[in-house]
This record gives sequence, C-alpha cells and structure tokens, in this order.
Amino acid sequence: MFSASVHRRSLVVTLLAVNFVVIACIGALAQSDPLPSWNDGAAKKSITDFVSRVTTPGGADFVPVEQRIATFDNDGTLWCEQPIYFQAAFALDRVKAMAAQHPEWKQQQPFKAFLSGDKKALAEQGEKGLLTLVVAAHSGMTTDEFAKSVADWLATAKHPRFNRPYNTLVYQPMVELLDYLRANGFKTFIASGGGVEFMRVWAEKAYGIPPEQVVGSSGVTQFKIGADGRPVLMKLAKIEFVDDGPGKPVGINRFIGRRPIFAFGNSDGDLQMLQWTTAGAGARFAGVVHHTDAEREYAYDRQSKIGKLDKALDEAKAKGWIVVDMKQDWKKVFASEP
Amino acid sequence: MFSASVHRRSLVVTLLAVNFVVIACIGALAQSDPLPSWNDGAAKKSITDFVSRVTTPGGADFVPVEQRIATFDNDGTLWCEQPIYFQAAFALDRVKAMAAQHPEWKQQQPFKAFLSGDKKALAEQGEKGLLTLVVAAHSGMTTDEFAKSVADWLATAKHPRFNRPYNTLVYQPMVELLDYLRANGFKTFIASGGGVEFMRVWAEKAYGIPPEQVVGSSGVTQFKIGADGRPVLMKLAKIEFVDDGPGKPVGINRFIGRRPIFAFGNSDGDLQMLQWTTAGAGARFAGVVHHTDAEREYAYDRQSKIGKLDKALDEAKAKGWIVVDMKQDWKKVFASEP
Repeated sequence: MFSASVHRRSLVVTLLAVNFVVIACIGALAQSDPLPSWNDGAAKKSITDFVSRVTTPGGADFVPVEQRIATFDNDGTLWCEQPIYFQAAFALDRVKAMAAQHPEWKQQQPFKAFLSGDKKALAEQGEKGLLTLVVAAHSGMTTDEFAKSVADWLATAKHPRFNRPYNTLVYQPMVELLDYLRANGFKTFIASGGGVEFMRVWAEKAYGIPPEQVVGSSGVTQFKIGADGRPVLMKLAKIEFVDDGPGKPVGINRFIGRRPIFAFGNSDGDLQMLQWTTAGAGARFAGVVHHTDAEREYAYDRQSKIGKLDKALDEAKAKGWIVVDMKQDWKKVFASEP
Repeated sequence: MFSASVHRRSLVVTLLAVNFVVIACIGALAQSDPLPSWNDGAAKKSITDFVSRVTTPGGADFVPVEQRIATFDNDGTLWCEQPIYFQAAFALDRVKAMAAQHPEWKQQQPFKAFLSGDKKALAEQGEKGLLTLVVAAHSGMTTDEFAKSVADWLATAKHPRFNRPYNTLVYQPMVELLDYLRANGFKTFIASGGGVEFMRVWAEKAYGIPPEQVVGSSGVTQFKIGADGRPVLMKLAKIEFVDDGPGKPVGINRFIGRRPIFAFGNSDGDLQMLQWTTAGAGARFAGVVHHTDAEREYAYDRQSKIGKLDKALDEAKAKGWIVVDMKQDWKKVFASEP
C-alpha cells in the first residue's frame, strides 16, 4: 500500500509536471506570436512571410538591415481619423482657447462664426474658412510654445465618441506591427499628411517612433533672436510643404533619402507612396487598412470625406497589395479592448 | 651554476613577461584614445570632458541617449571646401559632360562662355551665371539618375591640388570625433548648406552617417508616372530650401525635430546653428574648425569668399565656444598622412 501510494503520488507529480511543461510551452508559443492582435489570415501571413523573406541571410529576397525602411501613414493607418482628423479637433479647440487673447476675432470671419457656434455662417466660409482656423492655431508662436499647446491639449481633450484622450486611439495591431518590424531590423518612419510638429509631440510614446523619423506636412518657421537675446523659431502663417498624395514620395525622398521596402496607408492620399515603394527592385510590401468595422471603430471608404479610399483600393486589388479588413483581420482595434 | 642559470633564465623570462605586460598596457592605452588624430590640448580635452559629463549616469549634466543629437556642417567642417566647394566642382564637370546632349548651349550664356573657357565672358555673367550652371547639373533628370552622376563623378574626378578623389579629402580627426560620439550614444547628423541629394551618395561611407541623417539644401522634386508606367521623382530647376545661416536651425527643426546638444561648424553660415544649439537648457557644446594650416590644407577665415569665418569667430571667442586650430590641434588632417 505504502509503495503503491508513493507510486501513485509520484505518478500524479509526473502528470502535473508534464501538464505544467505543456502549459508552459503553449504559453511560450502564444508569447512568440509577434502580432497577437491580428487574426490568423492572409493579411497576417503576408506580413510575417515578407519579413521572413527579407531577413533570411542568403535568401533570394534578403535585404541588408540599413535598407529595411518602412513608412506608415498616420491618420487612419496608425490611429483613428474620424469623425474629423484629430489635428483639426486640436486646432478648433485651440482657437477657442486662444480667443481671449484675440478680442478682434469677435468681429472677424471665420472666427466670429466658429466662436459663436453659428454653423451656417461657418459653412459659408467653406474650406478656406476652416483652413484659416487651423493656420491660426499653428502660427504666431515659437516652436516650443506650439509643442506645449499640443501636449496640453492631449492631456485634457477627449474624443467625442470614445470619450478618452485622442492618443489612446492608436491601433494596437499596428503598434505590434511597428514593434515586430523594428525587432527584425527595420527602421520605422511616419509619412503623413499631418503636421510634422504636431505628431512629434506624442509619436515617440505612442509608436516608438522618434521625432527624427516623423515625416509630415510643415509650416514655414523663421529663426529670430528674441528680445532676451535668445534665439527662437517662430511659426509663420504660411504652409511650407504638404506631405500628401504625390507629396509623400517627395517628402520620403527629401527626409529619408531612401526608398522604403515596406509601406502602409489607408487612403488615396497614400497611393503614390505605395506606388513608389513597390516600384523599387527586390521584395516589396504595400498594405492598406480598410475601415470595415463600424462597431469597434468606423466603416468608410469610397464615399468618405475623410480618409477616402477609392483609387488606392482598386489599385491594391489590381496589384495584389495587402488589404487589411479591420473587422476580419484585427482581434482588437484599441489596446483598451478586453 | 645550474641553479644560478635557472635563476637567471627565470629572471629573464620574468623580465620578458613584465615587459610584455607593459607593452600590452601601452598598446591598450594607445588604443583607448578615441581621438588619436587630435593633439592633446584644450580642444580635445573640452570634447572628451563634455562627452564624459553628459554620459555619466546620475551626474548633474547627464543627457538621456535619445537626446544626444549632434549636428555637423559638412563643407570645411568634415571635408575640404577649397579652392571651390566640391559640389560646385561636380556641377561644372557635369555641365561639360552634359554638353554633348545640349547643342543649344553653344549659343546660350552662361554655357557658351563656360564651355569655351572664356573666363571674361563668364565673369560678366556673375553669380547668377554660376548658379545657372549649377542648377543645370542638378535638374532635368530623375533622382536615381542624379545619384548615379554623383557616384560616377566621385569615381573619376580628382582634386586640383591634392590630385586624388574628392571623397578622400575628409578630415580624419572629425571622422574619429563622429565615431567617438556614436560610441557614446550620440546620433550624428549632417546639417549642411550643400545639397542633400549630393551628400547622401557618399556620406555613409565617408562618415558613417546614413542618408536619413543628412540635412541639407534641396531642389524641388516632382512625382511622375514615367512612360513605362513606373513612378519616378524628377529633379526640377527650382530651389526648395537653402539650409544655410538662419536656414540651419530651420532645417534642423524640420528634419530632426530636436535641438542638438552638440554642433560643429567652420563658417559664418554655421553661426545660427551654433546659437540655436547652445541656447537650449543643460550642457551644450559648440565647436568651430579654424583653417590655419596652409601647408597641410588651407589657411583662411575673415576674408575668404568660401567658408568665410568672421562673425562666428568673434562670437565663439565671446561665448567660449571651442575653436579648433587645425595646425595646432590636429595631428593629421587627412587619413593618408603618415
């Protein structure tokens, strides 16, 4: 009995131990998935296959580390862009905050219409009126003051639908993709139509992308020696460069000086970046985020005023670029989901 | 006798061993000098002191790695700029090479004067004439074609005085300084008045600075779908941005998005970069290469048409920036020296 009991006990211990090892292995396997928020499917497989091909030494598609350049659009590709571009939301909030220092705005359009909430009068000002508001929030201050205004806004403003800070609305699967690429020797860049100085304030924390790897639209800045004898860079009310559409390959060439081998976008504004990326020699990857999930995020494409995806969707299908179906391909959209 | 002999032999062995250890130590010490082409003196000491201060964890001047941004002017700071900027030499050689495809230049100024060697007529065209020649060499082709023209030129052209390829005329002490900074966690950038696309062709090999860390002047490029359906970037005959003087902090802000803590220049075109760098909080380093060595390189400053160093020399002295006396401070100028 004693001997049998010992035997049985040791059997139980052995089984427990085996069980533990099996569980540990499953855990390790789960941990070794570099893209846990992606469902298994063609999109995920095409990404991991590509990375495997370009990083296999001696393989036909091997790419040296220094040439592993990946560029990502930001609005609608790395974070949400609905119901309006977050930078536009920042600008409008900022004009309200600045109004006390600008009593003249009470009599001046489009400020008067916007500040009094007169939507009809604001609509009459058209796109030019909106641009005037955006420019007002982005000029007449030093670059340091502007960066502070962005940080202050992020710390207080909340998204109208999700009711939380805008910089929590980054796409968890894309954050994992950025990490995965960097772990495989890629240098990750943003190439966005958004303002470069707006993005640099929060992109490093949100995506692990440092300021010097953010390419975007910019306003003219001017070097001045201030009244206290210290130099400042003043932001002027003049657009320098629009990093959108055909401007994206131009911006990538100017800022990075190498052609990416991997690019991701979500709208027609990314079409030329994807064309430019895939036209290079060797293995190339082009991806498009298709917003198909009205429940967890938004569903829009060909008819949308913001993030219109029409020509690029056709070209993606024609050329075999990877179209990510947000609803199908993403296990979660935001990190906050259970 | 036997015993004494053994004794003596073991003494010899011991002495040899000690000798060997001493030699090895001297060797290690010599190897451990990160700036072997710099003579010991105030300039070298100020560099190593600064790096030691900002990299000592817990020290009052410690700077986190991601903020260790260093920017260097190129012409006259990292490589020679006499008797004319090397990029101007490239442009003039290139116009000659392109002449066969441009029969109209035979009748068209300033090309006619330049191609026929009519110095008087060329002088009459003034600076604008020279600029026209430079622009001609930098436009009307794709970015890929331009990069190839630079590489071809470097492979064949020789400096008129030193009679060797231009890219061998980089300053060895500065190459060591770049390596030393990188070994201490710095990210090294070029911030040059020179053309960004010209420099990117050879800067990685010459300095270990990759294309995406080269900031410079640029021409306008245009995205186009070529006749074969492939996209290209065409270089237009229009200047986009001049990264010189007050343009340097502007370019640094636009491309890098962080203020450097360390900057090196050699002319008045670098003054604002040095002002901008040193105006930030915490430990800052500003250095100026003073060309004082007519024998090994060139001697010039306040009166020079190229690389004029006048106001920046005064301000360097007034503010205690480090002025490197090429003749005194550099053990060798070029790597080829014995």
